[in-house]
Amino acid sequence: MINIETFDNPHSYRDYEIVHENPEFTSLCPKTGLPDFGIITVKYVPDLLCIELKALKYYFLEFRNKGIFYEDLTNQILNDLVGVCQPRFMEISTEWTSRGGMNSKIVAKYEKGKDDQIR
Amino acid sequence: MINIETFDNPHSYRDYEIVHENPEFTSLCPKTGLPDFGIITVKYVPDLLCIELKALKYYFLEFRNKGIFYEDLTNQILNDLVGVCQPRFMEISTEWTSRGGMNSKIVAKYEKGKDDQIR
Amino acid sequence: MINIETFDNPHSYRDYEIVHENPEFTSLCPKTGLPDFGIITVKYVPDLLCIELKALKYYFLEFRNKGIFYEDLTNQILNDLVGVCQPRFMEISTEWTSRGGMNSKIVAKYEKGKDDQIR
Amino acid sequence: MINIETFDNPHSYRDYEIVHENPEFTSLCPKTGLPDFGIITVKYVPDLLCIELKALKYYFLEFRNKGIFYEDLTNQILNDLVGVCQPRFMEISTEWTSRGGMNSKIVAKYEKGKDDQIR
Amino acid sequence: MINIETFDNPHSYRDYEIVHENPEFTSLCPKTGLPDFGIITVKYVPDLLCIELKALKYYFLEFRNKGIFYEDLTNQILNDLVGVCQPRFMEISTEWTSRGGMNSKIVAKYEKGKDDQIR
Amino acid sequence: MINIETFDNPHSYRDYEIVHENPEFTSLCPKTGLPDFGIITVKYVPDLLCIELKALKYYFLEFRNKGIFYEDLTNQILNDLVGVCQPRFMEISTEWTSRGGMNSKIVAKYEKGKDDQIR
Amino acid sequence: MINIETFDNPHSYRDYEIVHENPEFTSLCPKTGLPDFGIITVKYVPDLLCIELKALKYYFLEFRNKGIFYEDLTNQILNDLVGVCQPRFMEISTEWTSRGGMNSKIVAKYEKGKDDQIR
Amino acid sequence: MINIETFDNPHSYRDYEIVHENPEFTSLCPKTGLPDFGIITVKYVPDLLCIELKALKYYFLEFRNKGIFYEDLTNQILNDLVGVCQPRFMEISTEWTSRGGMNSKIVAKYEKGKDDQIR
Amino acid sequence: MINIETFDNPHSYRDYEIVHENPEFTSLCPKTGLPDFGIITVKYVPDLLCIELKALKYYFLEFRNKGIFYEDLTNQILNDLVGVCQPRFMEISTEWTSRGGMNSKIVAKYEKGKDDQIR
Amino acid sequence: MINIETFDNPHSYRDYEIVHENPEFTSLCPKTGLPDFGIITVKYVPDLLCIELKALKYYFLEFRNKGIFYEDLTNQILNDLVGVCQPRFMEISTEWTSRGGMNSKIVAKYEKGKDDQIR
Repeated sequence: MINIETFDNPHSYRDYEIVHENPEFTSLCPKTGLPDFGIITVKYVPDLLCIELKALKYYFLEFRNKGIFYEDLTNQILNDLVGVCQPRFMEISTEWTSRGGMNSKIVAKYEKGKDDQIR
Repeated sequence: MINIETFDNPHSYRDYEIVHENPEFTSLCPKTGLPDFGIITVKYVPDLLCIELKALKYYFLEFRNKGIFYEDLTNQILNDLVGVCQPRFMEISTEWTSRGGMNSKIVAKYEKGKDDQIR
Repeated sequence: MINIETFDNPHSYRDYEIVHENPEFTSLCPKTGLPDFGIITVKYVPDLLCIELKALKYYFLEFRNKGIFYEDLTNQILNDLVGVCQPRFMEISTEWTSRGGMNSKIVAKYEKGKDDQIR
Repeated sequence: MINIETFDNPHSYRDYEIVHENPEFTSLCPKTGLPDFGIITVKYVPDLLCIELKALKYYFLEFRNKGIFYEDLTNQILNDLVGVCQPRFMEISTEWTSRGGMNSKIVAKYEKGKDDQIR
Repeated sequence: MINIETFDNPHSYRDYEIVHENPEFTSLCPKTGLPDFGIITVKYVPDLLCIELKALKYYFLEFRNKGIFYEDLTNQILNDLVGVCQPRFMEISTEWTSRGGMNSKIVAKYEKGKDDQIR
Repeated sequence: MINIETFDNPHSYRDYEIVHENPEFTSLCPKTGLPDFGIITVKYVPDLLCIELKALKYYFLEFRNKGIFYEDLTNQILNDLVGVCQPRFMEISTEWTSRGGMNSKIVAKYEKGKDDQIR
Repeated sequence: MINIETFDNPHSYRDYEIVHENPEFTSLCPKTGLPDFGIITVKYVPDLLCIELKALKYYFLEFRNKGIFYEDLTNQILNDLVGVCQPRFMEISTEWTSRGGMNSKIVAKYEKGKDDQIR
Repeated sequence: MINIETFDNPHSYRDYEIVHENPEFTSLCPKTGLPDFGIITVKYVPDLLCIELKALKYYFLEFRNKGIFYEDLTNQILNDLVGVCQPRFMEISTEWTSRGGMNSKIVAKYEKGKDDQIR
Repeated sequence: MINIETFDNPHSYRDYEIVHENPEFTSLCPKTGLPDFGIITVKYVPDLLCIELKALKYYFLEFRNKGIFYEDLTNQILNDLVGVCQPRFMEISTEWTSRGGMNSKIVAKYEKGKDDQIR
Repeated sequence: MINIETFDNPHSYRDYEIVHENPEFTSLCPKTGLPDFGIITVKYVPDLLCIELKALKYYFLEFRNKGIFYEDLTNQILNDLVGVCQPRFMEISTEWTSRGGMNSKIVAKYEKGKDDQIR
């Protein structure tokens, strides 16, 4: 399991939403080795732990020279971050710049209680 | 039935959304033979198969010199792509540039279980 | 009743949405005789008939030198087009440029079964 | 009660929405006497009466040199216009330009049957 | 408890929404001491008291040289303002400019009756 | 020669620029009889006479049901308005909505002294 | 002559540009008495005096209930402000919201030395 | 030499500018055979002949299934259209959608007298 | 004189332009003590020295709790930065958010050789 | 010297402009090792050689994991590309996303004959 720094949610008595958007994400296409550029958005309702912002940034940097498909990457980030902070809800969306004249977007969600057994 | 390359959905245990937008679509008007220009958007929740992006692009290129009405094209693409990847949900929307001072948009949806018998 | 060309809906086994937007609509104010400029949007779910696009354009041109209030025009277009193609659903919205510093918008809807008896 | 000209709703057999937006509204701050600038939007579903557009414009002009708070003005306009045309539904929203670096917006609604007794 | 001036809601017989947006908010990062810049939006349905706009502005100014995390600040403002005016509903959202290439947004809500006991 | 109301330039001792933009212009295509829609902009430096705004509006309305090509219309309006107010400088630009997928713009200028003999 | 507060230009050894934009200007149409709304922009290169911002705001407020034409107002403000601060250069531009479907803009300039004798 | 319909310039006594923009241009990449999409803009000052708009549209359509590089296409269109209407000035600019993550734009100009001998 | 870190211009054989924009600038109004918010842009052609970006950021932070007028601040920054790096050209522009309904912008320039003696 | 593929300019008898924009450029900060993201624009007037688009793309990819300052990178790209295709004119501009709350832009130009000796 990955290791991302977290901190105690100071207001865990309440459901509230945290959104971190990284408009400067880049990884590699596993087929061509050419770079992909995208915007990654993490939206979540924390339970007992919040994700530390700087740690999240370094986690995203590890994809810079890694070859991975859009669909796989989006779900893998969701699994990684759910594992790290056990949120009440989390949604990862990735929005990719044009490749071959086509733009893509992937959105995957996790809901505590409902989606725990399926992973 | 058409033949578009697919690959195994690596995260089929979860419902998640994939969107591919092609802003460079062109076909021909069946009445005048003049070109139509549009944006085609494929939004789907994959089941066991995902559509390969490059194959989808080549599928769209086959319409370049084909004469077909907006309403027909939108539904035909939906039928073709549902046939190819048997998704849990799919929506095709086509948005067309101005013809005779009028812009058109067509949206057709498919939901597994609910819409299977009607085709 | 008005006479607008229609064609058979090639995919009537499915509910899908057709939108035609006319951003170049003009009629006359019945009080002052001065021109009104607006955007007319027709959104509908066809049943057995679709409205022919060119015929729709010519239908709109008939308002060019006709004096009619916003509220009346919007509902009258809805009644005319419902009469012509008997859709499962239709919505007409008209959005008008500024008159005396005020912008107006009118939206009227029709739903088959629910609104048939009231007209 | 105020006096704003109305006309008979020509299509009262149907619920439809009318929106009038006045982006050139100005009144005075009751504390400082300095002008406030805002956008007033009237959205309603008429019953038997529609509000005459020119009369509405003149009604708004009466606030030009009147000192009144945002919250009070929004509700007072709602009460005035409901009184005049007895609509099935009405919503007044007022959106104000920056004062002391802060922008404000107030939205008040009325629904026939539900809100009649509370005024 | 903080002290922010309020005034009597002149239309407490009706649920209506008040939004105050402060696009010129700045506080300090508690780790680096560097300034953070954000947009704070207060949306609420008043009960018996409304928040005085100028007092709200001065309350926000107190954060200018205070070190506080995004998540904490958002919830603390919600707790402070709920304490001051006891609204029927309140939502605080804070939207922050890019830090390390990442933008953040936090949204926290309070509903009278439902959320009273949890604080 | 056409007849458009003018008024004495109250500040003729100075060169200054007046721009009137009409975003609601419509005329007819002389070939098809179908309406053209455009934005007409009149920019001029007045000499002894200014063009009355309401009169200009009525002058533009005369083109509503007249068939005329873009190039001809632009130059004819320039000739008409130069004749009416004898400005130090005038520029007419007309910008047309899409016809057959193509947008057009025409710009013609007049400079006193330099262009007087050529008309 | 009008009386607007000024202060000594602290950097008169250098030509530099100051722009004050007032997007909340309103005056009255001298013909109809109806309000006009516009954006007034003052751009100038100060000589020995700068215009005090708050004083400028109060000067603009005096037009709120005054009837005056666009062309006259623009030149009169230029004359007033040149008289007050004797700048090296000044340009007044006024940009007006739509009246009768037409938008207007007036721009007048003053250059020290060149334009002094003509007023 | 190509054959595009022209008509006599009705106002050849004056230099004025005509712009036709075609935002729906498509040709093929000569290397890959894949479609390129671009916006072609023709700006010219006519001499004795104007280019007929519909003829220009059909001329552009001939590139739909032709393989040609951006740089060559832009200059070839300039040469063709200069040959057809012998303008006082002409500029062709072509702006291309992203290929391999890069957008391109080519601009070529012709000036009568100055550039005649070089072709 | 202030102390901002510089580094040797690695390409001083050529005139080229460097622009640093700080959209998160804040200082205080010297009259009211209330915060001002603005965008500071430094554009310069370096001679032998370039300004270090992080040092520039810390220099701007020193204004956070300083009371200073727009006109003075702009010229003072120009003088400070010219003193630090002796550029061939420098322009400082400051663009301020609305105060009392008015937006301001100040632009001051320095050109080596031409403006050296005047400071 | 670098090696980028070129092809013969098919229209070298004429000065014309070619622009290639790469909105997906990334390199590393030489101090922190963190990624920088920018838009690189190459504008040039070719002489005998044009730069091959795909080769240019691969040249830009070489900076992906290289640490280099903005100012140096911009001038180095200019020197490299001038060396490769000996253009009549070339301009490189690089526009960088926010670092520490500040955005930067660098523009460097080369003109044949004028700038040859200085490098």
